[in-house]
Amino acid sequence: MNKKMVLYTLGKIIWVEAALLLLPVVVCLLYSNDSLFSFAVTLVTAVAVAAPLTIFCKPQNKVIYSKEGFVIVSLAWIVMSLIGALPFVISGEIPSFIDAFFETVSGFTTTGASIIENVEAMSEGILFWRSFTHWIGGMGVLVFVMALTAGLPDRSIHIMRAEMPGPIVDKLVPKARETAKILYLIYICMTVAEIIILVICKMPLFEALVHTFGTAGTGGFGVKADSIAGYSPVIQWVITVFMFLFGINFNLYYLILLRRIKSAFKSSELWVYAGVGVVSCIAITFNISEMYGSFSEALRHSAFQVSTVMTTTGYATADFNMWPGFSKTLLLILMFMGACAGSTAGGLKVSRVIILAKGIRRELTRLLHPRSVKTLKLDGKRLDEQTLSTTALYFTVYAACLVAVWFILSMDKYDTETNFSAAIACFNNIGPGIGIVGPAGNYSGYSVISKIVLSVAMLLGRLEIFPMLLCFSPATWSKKK
Amino acid sequence: MNKKMVLYTLGKIIWVEAALLLLPVVVCLLYSNDSLFSFAVTLVTAVAVAAPLTIFCKPQNKVIYSKEGFVIVSLAWIVMSLIGALPFVISGEIPSFIDAFFETVSGFTTTGASIIENVEAMSEGILFWRSFTHWIGGMGVLVFVMALTAGLPDRSIHIMRAEMPGPIVDKLVPKARETAKILYLIYICMTVAEIIILVICKMPLFEALVHTFGTAGTGGFGVKADSIAGYSPVIQWVITVFMFLFGINFNLYYLILLRRIKSAFKSSELWVYAGVGVVSCIAITFNISEMYGSFSEALRHSAFQVSTVMTTTGYATADFNMWPGFSKTLLLILMFMGACAGSTAGGLKVSRVIILAKGIRRELTRLLHPRSVKTLKLDGKRLDEQTLSTTALYFTVYAACLVAVWFILSMDKYDTETNFSAAIACFNNIGPGIGIVGPAGNYSGYSVISKIVLSVAMLLGRLEIFPMLLCFSPATWSKKK
Repeated sequence: MNKKMVLYTLGKIIWVEAALLLLPVVVCLLYSNDSLFSFAVTLVTAVAVAAPLTIFCKPQNKVIYSKEGFVIVSLAWIVMSLIGALPFVISGEIPSFIDAFFETVSGFTTTGASIIENVEAMSEGILFWRSFTHWIGGMGVLVFVMALTAGLPDRSIHIMRAEMPGPIVDKLVPKARETAKILYLIYICMTVAEIIILVICKMPLFEALVHTFGTAGTGGFGVKADSIAGYSPVIQWVITVFMFLFGINFNLYYLILLRRIKSAFKSSELWVYAGVGVVSCIAITFNISEMYGSFSEALRHSAFQVSTVMTTTGYATADFNMWPGFSKTLLLILMFMGACAGSTAGGLKVSRVIILAKGIRRELTRLLHPRSVKTLKLDGKRLDEQTLSTTALYFTVYAACLVAVWFILSMDKYDTETNFSAAIACFNNIGPGIGIVGPAGNYSGYSVISKIVLSVAMLLGRLEIFPMLLCFSPATWSKKK
Repeated sequence: MNKKMVLYTLGKIIWVEAALLLLPVVVCLLYSNDSLFSFAVTLVTAVAVAAPLTIFCKPQNKVIYSKEGFVIVSLAWIVMSLIGALPFVISGEIPSFIDAFFETVSGFTTTGASIIENVEAMSEGILFWRSFTHWIGGMGVLVFVMALTAGLPDRSIHIMRAEMPGPIVDKLVPKARETAKILYLIYICMTVAEIIILVICKMPLFEALVHTFGTAGTGGFGVKADSIAGYSPVIQWVITVFMFLFGINFNLYYLILLRRIKSAFKSSELWVYAGVGVVSCIAITFNISEMYGSFSEALRHSAFQVSTVMTTTGYATADFNMWPGFSKTLLLILMFMGACAGSTAGGLKVSRVIILAKGIRRELTRLLHPRSVKTLKLDGKRLDEQTLSTTALYFTVYAACLVAVWFILSMDKYDTETNFSAAIACFNNIGPGIGIVGPAGNYSGYSVISKIVLSVAMLLGRLEIFPMLLCFSPATWSKKK
């Protein structure tokens, strides 16, 4: 373990977090000074932690292996959340540190689960920071750091692998740092586009910023008690479309930028993602059409809810708890699937579902014709056996973690439905669940232990389980290589 | 598809079922004649179906492939259940055919889920048949037929593979028919032993028969409203031990018969099964000790419930819904795991859990050391990549089916907890769930559609999903080979 390199990189990351904290400071100066002091204290704390790490831990040996990659990513997310929680506590807007930590983890992991009971009573600075964590966490904290700073480890693709969601991580260009830069450029352009469009649609600038961060990171923190329900239909459509766009693999945008549009549209993941979305949207529209005044209203609510659930964003324009069983069921299934790999969304990812479906199909063929040899293909490329078994084993671990979280929650005071949906909603980085933790409720009633478990679940879900497991496994820290 | 062979084998199977129906006829003659007529009619019906199949469908070509194996097994279980349901309907003790079908499928699949509201009001003949289906289904209907009748297809190992639970099916001896005979001999000896011991412990002979069938098949149908709770502690201990014994892989008993005791005890599945059982039993004993008068009473209830849940039998001496969260949670986890492959128990099977755990461990190692090559071993034998990926994909299908069943049930009128536990209890062939379908309740309140779905779930669970899926897949029936 190259400990110096780990600490040094952590230091760099905290420097970046300190720099990012300047933005809410500006917001405080513009809107109200209520929480200015808390951000100032947090900024100083961050610098006080970062400076010694970068000064005293400068490593001779800059080489890292996957091991270090996993440890850096896991620790970075935990440390960033610990520091990011300070403004909430110091400003007194979330007095308990555990609650603040839960809220910050929920932000960085783009979950959007909240313990705040009255979001409309919060100050602008705090609301801004809360949503900004979505934006930072969406594309990946470390990918961001990689894009920004030089002097990072060689082979930093290991960091990217640990942080980027999905079964296969492509390097777009030979250098990981360049890939990170390209991804963040696309991300920033799309973010700016959404802000401009929302402002044109007459959303106040501050709210446009907050909701764009929530959409871009597929997070779901907002500023209103009724989420997006109070905004005009046009705004709801804009957010629907952008949620969908942020759920697409960013590599495809890069291909489009390179004018390799044909290969972008050859992605089977894109087609399954869009196909499932459109079919679900139509089915739900017909199922709920009697509940709403017009077909267009039913279509709008259906499209919004399908988009928010598939991309694990968590905004809402309607309380789908009230919808018929069929629609509710369909939305729950979409929650499990999630959106595309390499996007900002959580969940199992469409590409994994495709790989598993292909694997199961071949399994059935093999049972019928035991001697048949069939290689699997995905987008024209051969799918090797290892990717298949890794994906299937990932699903196993995924299910095991989900059940474990659910069982720990079951010792708390709520009903099974609430606990189960809370486990799914946090682990898949969706946010609101069903029952007490539904769109109209929040997570404040859970015990401290449950909140810690749910925070861990959010981190496990965002980092796709293995980095966290490895970071806390003795084998990672043992001397022998 | 060798259709003649399929129909011919089905005919043979129904002949055997007709022969088995003679036993409840004897019981009716000995105890009460109430349901004698219904068994006579069923017997005649069975013969009327079986005779033409065996006379007119005699095949020239006796060779079958896996395809035919899966189709024979799936159809046999459905047809046997359809015929086996007749006595309940004709006798009027279960007036609805769907209810009777549910009860019979529950019997053959050794689930033990019941729609009968007052079991103590049923006649002896019906109660005997109901429990006898457990015994027939436990070791496998077709394995039984194979053991009994000559003139069955060559390569009948395909039938056995489709019916025997577990990831790897060993032939004990070169001929599948001989293997089937050995397995059934062991099964019969253990059954007789339990009957004798129960009678010695002062259980009336009829009840000893019924409860032995329920234990041997790990089914769980009884004759009392309070299951086993009313019997003496000694009887409870006897049943605890026999449930545990019937949850062990029968191949190990064969090895012990051959005096290859060392190789029998080298089975890691046995040790994990026993280890998990003992540790869970001790943990639960301490957790519930305050609820019971003495340590020995707590230990007895704990051991019984651990044994019944691990082996998916479904008997009960205590209502574990009332136990503390920790114990309840632990029992629920044990439900998922089930007992050993090659036993009469349902669930995921210990050997699958071991294989998955080994796979996940290697996955983690591979992430740390990407270039390491490590072959997996199970009981000293190399575990090939295909077994690993098949097992992981099996788990994926298993989870998908479980979720699908649960979602269909969720459209019925009960709460999430009841529905979820009903799906688990039927799919894993356990029997009683939690809430309305708990040990004190039954499944009678579900709608017809839910009952059909749960019947399908029980069959899917017992036959380990793939045979049923294949039987109803167009590829199986297409002309090209």
